[in-house]
Amino acid sequence: MRFASYAQNGRQGLATLVDTAWHGLTEADAGFPGTLLSLIQAGGAALAQAAETLAKAPVVDLDSVTLLPPISNPGKIVCVGLNYTDHSAESGFKQPDYPTLFGRFNSSLIAHGAPILRPAFSDQLDYEGELVAIVGKTARDVAEADALDYVSGYSIFNDASIRDYQFKAPQWTPGKNFDDTGAFGPHFVTADELPRGCEGLKLITRLNGQVVQQASISDMVFSVAQLVSILSNFMTLEPGDVIVTGTPSGVGLARKPPLWMRHGDTVEVEVEQIGILSNPVRDRDAVQPTKVA
Amino acid sequence: MRFASYAQNGRQGLATLVDTAWHGLTEADAGFPGTLLSLIQAGGAALAQAAETLAKAPVVDLDSVTLLPPISNPGKIVCVGLNYTDHSAESGFKQPDYPTLFGRFNSSLIAHGAPILRPAFSDQLDYEGELVAIVGKTARDVAEADALDYVSGYSIFNDASIRDYQFKAPQWTPGKNFDDTGAFGPHFVTADELPRGCEGLKLITRLNGQVVQQASISDMVFSVAQLVSILSNFMTLEPGDVIVTGTPSGVGLARKPPLWMRHGDTVEVEVEQIGILSNPVRDRDAVQPTKVA
Repeated sequence: MRFASYAQNGRQGLATLVDTAWHGLTEADAGFPGTLLSLIQAGGAALAQAAETLAKAPVVDLDSVTLLPPISNPGKIVCVGLNYTDHSAESGFKQPDYPTLFGRFNSSLIAHGAPILRPAFSDQLDYEGELVAIVGKTARDVAEADALDYVSGYSIFNDASIRDYQFKAPQWTPGKNFDDTGAFGPHFVTADELPRGCEGLKLITRLNGQVVQQASISDMVFSVAQLVSILSNFMTLEPGDVIVTGTPSGVGLARKPPLWMRHGDTVEVEVEQIGILSNPVRDRDAVQPTKVA
Repeated sequence: MRFASYAQNGRQGLATLVDTAWHGLTEADAGFPGTLLSLIQAGGAALAQAAETLAKAPVVDLDSVTLLPPISNPGKIVCVGLNYTDHSAESGFKQPDYPTLFGRFNSSLIAHGAPILRPAFSDQLDYEGELVAIVGKTARDVAEADALDYVSGYSIFNDASIRDYQFKAPQWTPGKNFDDTGAFGPHFVTADELPRGCEGLKLITRLNGQVVQQASISDMVFSVAQLVSILSNFMTLEPGDVIVTGTPSGVGLARKPPLWMRHGDTVEVEVEQIGILSNPVRDRDAVQPTKVA
């Protein structure tokens, strides 16, 4: 199953893909099954029932509505750094033997198609294409062998980073939390439609059509199953929690000269079988920032 | 005004202090004004109206109900590290000239009186007494001179840290996010009852009655006003967001030998005019972890 969250006339909607057409309902419509987050929280067969309901709903042209991140208000967004050996090396870090974790706040999220905004006071806006795993069930002390049972599905992230602010102090939080830098989408794909843990899927980032990052999800130092298990060892993961699994080599910071994203650019992150997350890049002053619902 | 969030018979309640007695209502009662978060989000005079309503409500014995963190589900919890020069030095860090920021997830929060839990696989459970500032209005690009207008009130935090997990990788997130380690409370005090920015107030941490940390809020490298201004420069702060402003010197990690919290200990963080946050320490295996509502 594949779902897209959207807004239409100020109302939240949810659509599912049937063959090549999206069918959707908004909260103003009778039979609206709920937001994606509420369905994942409901657990069990709620997603399948929603897909069945939505399949009978009218066709929605996703180009004529406002896409939202699959989940706009997750309970947590856990980001993984240094999860591809080549990227750790290019960034000047020794590869840690435990995941490097930081948080994103929901206030940084934007959807597919929305502009990633460069602040007026930094040129160092960088891309980071990443696979997203979304937790499906409350997870505490889960063994690696069981961990994928706790993943509801997958999506794509561009963990756009303001590098000078990332490294102003020992913790990366500011550079990872600028408003309008966390691109998330376009869709949510349930785990049963994909290889286990997305192993073997290709991840590609393109800047203005040029490939700038390319890797296999199998290259991750800590697999999705390992991440879920390790995270659940110290904190409770809850349905709808978002795990942003790290970026491969090729970031702009590591290039000589550095390659920064600029007003007018288009950046795409593709994960095979999941989709393409595409965002224009704009100067903050040039766009009135908008927040997702 | 002073508020306490609590649970009674599985229902959320809110109490306010009138002279020496707490008066409260739960969501099951007619006239329940809403949770503290919803009142802060409502803005304007909502807190004052709620205090007026609650003052006429029955007296509540806070010792006979379950206290909750003042806010259990803030939109963000931004923690500040290295915000007292002596603590930066004792921790082996050069004092950064920009705030050191990391995130806590809501899943780590516990209330006053609830046990801080030590996991079975680490001995390195440390205390960190801190002042909390709670955002009252949406803040974006706020000048330092105006920043305190965006603070609704204050509380207290024990940013209990599992030190070996804090330093397993370059980012501190795991050691700062164990379940049942983020003690927050006991109360919320509105800013108008306290010195501006809490300047000059004493912060004291006691372990089993012995003073282990002592400082003035004026010793913070970045004041509350500076923190709000700097944070709002890169991200939107929203009503109810929690800023945990950093800990002074005296942590257990920096002592020789190190001083770790152990099963049976009691740890208290006091901020003058705000209150005393007290928590027992227990081994995780000895207590069934409970989550706040």
